[in-house]
Amino acid sequence: MSQLQNLSLTDADQASANAELFDLLRIPSVSADPSHAPDMRRAADFLQAKLASLGFTARVEATAGHPVVYAERLSDPARPTVLIYGHYDVQPEAPLEEWLTPPFEPTVREGRIYARGSTDDKGQAYAHLRGAELLLKSGELPLNVKFLLEGEEEVGSKNLEPYLREHADQLKCDVIVISDGSRFAPDVPTVTYGLRGLSYVEVHVQGANRDLHSGSYGGSAPNPINALCQIISQLKDDQGRITIPGFYDGIDEITQEERDMWAGLPHDDAAFAGSIGAAGLPGEAGYTTLERLWARPTLDVNGIWGGYQGEGSKTVIAAKAGAKISMRLVPGQDPENITRLIQAYIPTLAPDGVKVEVKGLHGGQPVKIDLDNPYVRAAGKALEQVYGKAPAFTRGGGSIPIVAAFRDILKVPVVLVDFGLNEDAPHSPNESFALVDYHNGILTSAYLLQALAQAE
Amino acid sequence: MSQLQNLSLTDADQASANAELFDLLRIPSVSADPSHAPDMRRAADFLQAKLASLGFTARVEATAGHPVVYAERLSDPARPTVLIYGHYDVQPEAPLEEWLTPPFEPTVREGRIYARGSTDDKGQAYAHLRGAELLLKSGELPLNVKFLLEGEEEVGSKNLEPYLREHADQLKCDVIVISDGSRFAPDVPTVTYGLRGLSYVEVHVQGANRDLHSGSYGGSAPNPINALCQIISQLKDDQGRITIPGFYDGIDEITQEERDMWAGLPHDDAAFAGSIGAAGLPGEAGYTTLERLWARPTLDVNGIWGGYQGEGSKTVIAAKAGAKISMRLVPGQDPENITRLIQAYIPTLAPDGVKVEVKGLHGGQPVKIDLDNPYVRAAGKALEQVYGKAPAFTRGGGSIPIVAAFRDILKVPVVLVDFGLNEDAPHSPNESFALVDYHNGILTSAYLLQALAQAE
Repeated sequence: MSQLQNLSLTDADQASANAELFDLLRIPSVSADPSHAPDMRRAADFLQAKLASLGFTARVEATAGHPVVYAERLSDPARPTVLIYGHYDVQPEAPLEEWLTPPFEPTVREGRIYARGSTDDKGQAYAHLRGAELLLKSGELPLNVKFLLEGEEEVGSKNLEPYLREHADQLKCDVIVISDGSRFAPDVPTVTYGLRGLSYVEVHVQGANRDLHSGSYGGSAPNPINALCQIISQLKDDQGRITIPGFYDGIDEITQEERDMWAGLPHDDAAFAGSIGAAGLPGEAGYTTLERLWARPTLDVNGIWGGYQGEGSKTVIAAKAGAKISMRLVPGQDPENITRLIQAYIPTLAPDGVKVEVKGLHGGQPVKIDLDNPYVRAAGKALEQVYGKAPAFTRGGGSIPIVAAFRDILKVPVVLVDFGLNEDAPHSPNESFALVDYHNGILTSAYLLQALAQAE
Repeated sequence: MSQLQNLSLTDADQASANAELFDLLRIPSVSADPSHAPDMRRAADFLQAKLASLGFTARVEATAGHPVVYAERLSDPARPTVLIYGHYDVQPEAPLEEWLTPPFEPTVREGRIYARGSTDDKGQAYAHLRGAELLLKSGELPLNVKFLLEGEEEVGSKNLEPYLREHADQLKCDVIVISDGSRFAPDVPTVTYGLRGLSYVEVHVQGANRDLHSGSYGGSAPNPINALCQIISQLKDDQGRITIPGFYDGIDEITQEERDMWAGLPHDDAAFAGSIGAAGLPGEAGYTTLERLWARPTLDVNGIWGGYQGEGSKTVIAAKAGAKISMRLVPGQDPENITRLIQAYIPTLAPDGVKVEVKGLHGGQPVKIDLDNPYVRAAGKALEQVYGKAPAFTRGGGSIPIVAAFRDILKVPVVLVDFGLNEDAPHSPNESFALVDYHNGILTSAYLLQALAQAE
């Protein structure tokens, strides 16, 4: 791999990049609120115009919901093609009274841009536009670049998958880059190369056909709440392992390389527990906290209900009880298969006298790129160039449904290079994005385009 | 024991008893509704006037809530004294639209009086007034009789206990009789000689200090719902026995006499399960359904909550979860002690990473009279006289707090002789009371006064 061309942002570059981003942040493109539909269109037009000014073929494309901005600049068919995904819609600003400065009047305080959408995702997405612009100052882009900027990420991206299917040819590429999250820690540049999947079910337990008085029936009537607790408590053993038969079959075990890499990250269990105010960090035996978060499947009850939940006491034996249970999945597990396994298993755990139904609600595929994938390595190289240190290669504990959709429809790797931080408070009042993270994001994007062009 | 004097109701007696009860049922004495306060007073006055007309010293006595009607007719200080308890307040009538005839216009259909309060408890209480009247036709009452008719039973009787304490001398007696429930089955006259007690607690489990995203934290953060289920599932073993250390210490075991007696009752498990639409009747191994209902302690979760309970899926790990748990207790168990035992036990079941709090909410003493108690036998004799068959001696699965209060303050046995049936639908629309049950109640009351006078 040859050397990357050295790049820097002048004061004038920074001022211009800031001014343009502020203009974009002033547009209240709240996708959840139908009254903002004109603002959605303005934000899309703004991005289309900017990309056109950079020599991209750029257009605003209608969907069944808010439009998509698509742009491409194809420098040479022989070179690799990168597709950069981002979104221009933002979360609602409520509660407005908690903002120190208005959410759609970007304000810089102590080196941070305060505005709704600053980190999620206008700031991070716009860094890529400015990254391409930086490279274009010294000539043609070193590879083919496509941008796909959607307007419905904050409302579930429900029109994105159909768009991907309909435009699969146009979107053809070798790698997808997304910057829409947080890196591991302030001083740890991060490449995320995997995400967990999800299987989400709802369990319904029925005892009698009506609520019963616990005096008249207690001791001889089925209690669906007790039964549900009994079922749930058997889903894990005393080592924190999930007991569903076949659950762990065929999963990718954590490699020694990953174990070593993650053991070297700045993580402290006590500090982590302290950060969430928890008395401990229980989990599957034999794995560290980070291993459990990123690379082991889980089972959590997300909600439970049944009987009397009000003040004081009511001596009722409820007719029914229910729970929502989700499992985070890792590569090697298939959400539909896991849903079938738990649907078959739970009824076998039900005690006498109750009927149980397990409804599959929702699933998401786990994803992982091989650590040795040249595009993953290229992303690491770009970050090292900007931060002067080797980045962390992590996986994410959550699921980003569009990532699996990209993988499944376009069938290329997705590399997550996040410029933000948890402390940016995306989705909360006073969302912000550090100016240095924005500027480093621009540089990272420009180096990344170079590095991807050389990757193989 | 000498013979009981033969009694019967003439057509005129029945007509008059019906007409008077109907007048009482027309008064909408709904204790829960403050706008009915004048009706409460009218109902109390009605009963006071009737008792005065029977030669009782009768008065309406103020309490902090609705008034109490107290009356006494002391025939001979050398004879036993019975205190008859009842209540003249009724449940609210809602939902009004489900009544076939208006709730406060008593109507006879197919041999049943339809009206709010017909069985609970105006009809059953008034049977005792007419029972005394029937005996008075042929002379003095054979023992001293006191009536205590309260107006707050349907709202928790909270002023009754202070009234009992303040008037303990006036209320002095040898036995208390209450008819405010349902007998075992239509063709089974019933004496109830025991009730279960209650210990009711609320459990709170805390994990992190805020709700967490199950993607970012799942696998390494404590889940208070899973923990709560784990705790609850350990409160009983696989034989349905409660695992709280010391829980069964010192409890009265079911006697062979009781086992034999109850085994002879017309009860069928399949029919019982069918009546509540349940797939089975799980419970403590080694005991029949009736034994478990009447004479074995229980543990039931009455309510549970935590996390997301709405439609669809939300990938949250809740910060807290809670449950309401009650235990029905049998003689030999003390509610305060049992509450202390479960408060000490539950924290030992909590898995790592969560904090648990167990709050005592509410308790009630179990009660039981010795089966050989002469007043219990006297009640049986009275029923046999009316129905021509030996009655069932049962216990009740529920708790009636006033029964324990009577026992604890007046320190005499309480005998429950119920004239009603479950099918009377107390508390529901179209509450009713069979005319034959009302008339048999009057006869039973009159025989009971004779039998109690002879008891020793």
